[in-house]
Amino acid sequence: MKQITLDYQPIEWLGDRVKFLDQTRLPDDEMYIETKDYLEIVAAIKELKVRGAPLIGVAGAYGMALASLHIYVKGRAELLRRLKDVADNIGNARPTARNLMWAVERMLRVAVDGKTIENIRQALVAEATAIHEQEAGATYKMAENGAEFVNSGMNILTHCNTGPLAATGLGTALGVIINASRQGKKIHVYADETRPLLQGARLTAWELNKVGVPATLITDSTAGYLMQQGKVDAVLVGADRISANGDTANKIGTYTLAVLARENSVPFYVVAPSSTFDLSIADGSQITIELRNPNEVTRFGGISIAPEGTDALSPAFDITPAKYITAFVTERGIIRQPLTENLLTML
Amino acid sequence: MKQITLDYQPIEWLGDRVKFLDQTRLPDDEMYIETKDYLEIVAAIKELKVRGAPLIGVAGAYGMALASLHIYVKGRAELLRRLKDVADNIGNARPTARNLMWAVERMLRVAVDGKTIENIRQALVAEATAIHEQEAGATYKMAENGAEFVNSGMNILTHCNTGPLAATGLGTALGVIINASRQGKKIHVYADETRPLLQGARLTAWELNKVGVPATLITDSTAGYLMQQGKVDAVLVGADRISANGDTANKIGTYTLAVLARENSVPFYVVAPSSTFDLSIADGSQITIELRNPNEVTRFGGISIAPEGTDALSPAFDITPAKYITAFVTERGIIRQPLTENLLTML
Repeated sequence: MKQITLDYQPIEWLGDRVKFLDQTRLPDDEMYIETKDYLEIVAAIKELKVRGAPLIGVAGAYGMALASLHIYVKGRAELLRRLKDVADNIGNARPTARNLMWAVERMLRVAVDGKTIENIRQALVAEATAIHEQEAGATYKMAENGAEFVNSGMNILTHCNTGPLAATGLGTALGVIINASRQGKKIHVYADETRPLLQGARLTAWELNKVGVPATLITDSTAGYLMQQGKVDAVLVGADRISANGDTANKIGTYTLAVLARENSVPFYVVAPSSTFDLSIADGSQITIELRNPNEVTRFGGISIAPEGTDALSPAFDITPAKYITAFVTERGIIRQPLTENLLTML
Repeated sequence: MKQITLDYQPIEWLGDRVKFLDQTRLPDDEMYIETKDYLEIVAAIKELKVRGAPLIGVAGAYGMALASLHIYVKGRAELLRRLKDVADNIGNARPTARNLMWAVERMLRVAVDGKTIENIRQALVAEATAIHEQEAGATYKMAENGAEFVNSGMNILTHCNTGPLAATGLGTALGVIINASRQGKKIHVYADETRPLLQGARLTAWELNKVGVPATLITDSTAGYLMQQGKVDAVLVGADRISANGDTANKIGTYTLAVLARENSVPFYVVAPSSTFDLSIADGSQITIELRNPNEVTRFGGISIAPEGTDALSPAFDITPAKYITAFVTERGIIRQPLTENLLTML
């Protein structure tokens, strides 16, 4: 598939430092930050300046590379000890997305093979770059593999942001949509705004405008209304972690969409690279759901929207049981029902 | 039931004028507006300064009374002609809530019985006041009738705002909750924020704080997550119009909650006075859904949240098919399944 050229990149490696787009400033400001400090990568992941499961995997890998280059150590053993701590620090920046720990563990495995400090540094830079390229490449393969589910004339509903901003390359669910549009299929997207942090309004609307795919922004509660009226032909979402049985953690609200989709006989596809699958856990009950600061619900853009002192709850993700998922689109191919069986064969 | 005393009133009749609370300013400012101009009532209804199906019925009735007092006419026939126009103007301020047209039609029927201008004026003031008292009284009866569904220890999920602000008296769904709490039942409420206009965050959190019922504010998408985890014992909502078969128009997102409730075996109650029922229409497909300005979705508290030029869609209501509703709580009693049959017996 021909790569598309975008005038923005969520993350880049600049030889000895990382440049990333501060996604919290979008759509108003397209502001990039350059850093040699892996702690700034950790902070950026926690604060959602860098977000999206595949992207935080890539960012985590670059964080390890930065740490190897810029932490002062006296010898190989000390470097490996320090890298282990860095890996814990980065890997625990957010708990739900599998890709983050997946990338960090892969980096650590490469590090221990290095014979000298210099070997380790070179290997980690090379591995982080390889992870970035591999994850970007995976998005193109997912976009190709998912093409069979997207026909001209379709109205596709999506949630949160799953474009290039979330995954590099083409993105996950949005990558399938962008690719279909590039193939000449006429696609219209309903983009859930995705409260509380409005990734749909701020990021998906911005990206679809950049790539020229027509979209209509809706509140999250409007998705059910549209499905009930037969105005949604398919739901495409990304994922943060998928257990061995196919239960899927994704942005809060995804479970609701899946239930509504089944109720209204709308196919529901999850688009995710193999790095999002966690075969070490049996089912979704073992996935940690990140609880974020309740003021993400009670405040908006610095303005309080609820009375002072209002209690709030802000789970960042929910779990969609496998039974609601029509199929997974991965870079290795489509995984259909029965998901548990087919997932283990494919991955 | 003992009436509760609140330090706020959504609407009052002051002899020759109406005083109403501007609900768009809550929770920051508790600002009241006094007017003798029925057109200001029409504008207040359109702009949601006055909102909630039962409350806009009351406001519409007072609007008719204001018009009769303050419009200059030369004789009875002219007054009746003018009142017919006023009734159309008020009745069409918002299309979905039945209560508005119900109140206005009732006022018109009273007007035509008046023999003189003065008769008509007195009769309309008396009728509007009676409608207000009747609707407030109905909320106390609904609160009593609904008590059987609310037990101590329950977590109740609600949507939008259905308290005194929405209906005078105790409110509809929130009235049942407030009454249960006054009876000494320990109730905890999950309040959906209710995008786009955040009536849950702005109004329900404010009212529950005023009456001392513990509540947790959540984004609309979090409701499904909580139901899936068994953390919701019942869903209570209000209604804007209920057709003869029990299909129910209510705030956008209600249909989604009803589907999620059934999927998770959570009872789903609609609390509404008889003035919300519209037996003239067979089913929900005949209910007009108000489409509001898309900038209610693309903007948030005056701040743009999406890129300039983003298309958006803002239906204010959706239709919950009767099959998802466990029971209606009305001032005349509980209406259980099969709703269609029992609804016609009760109303």
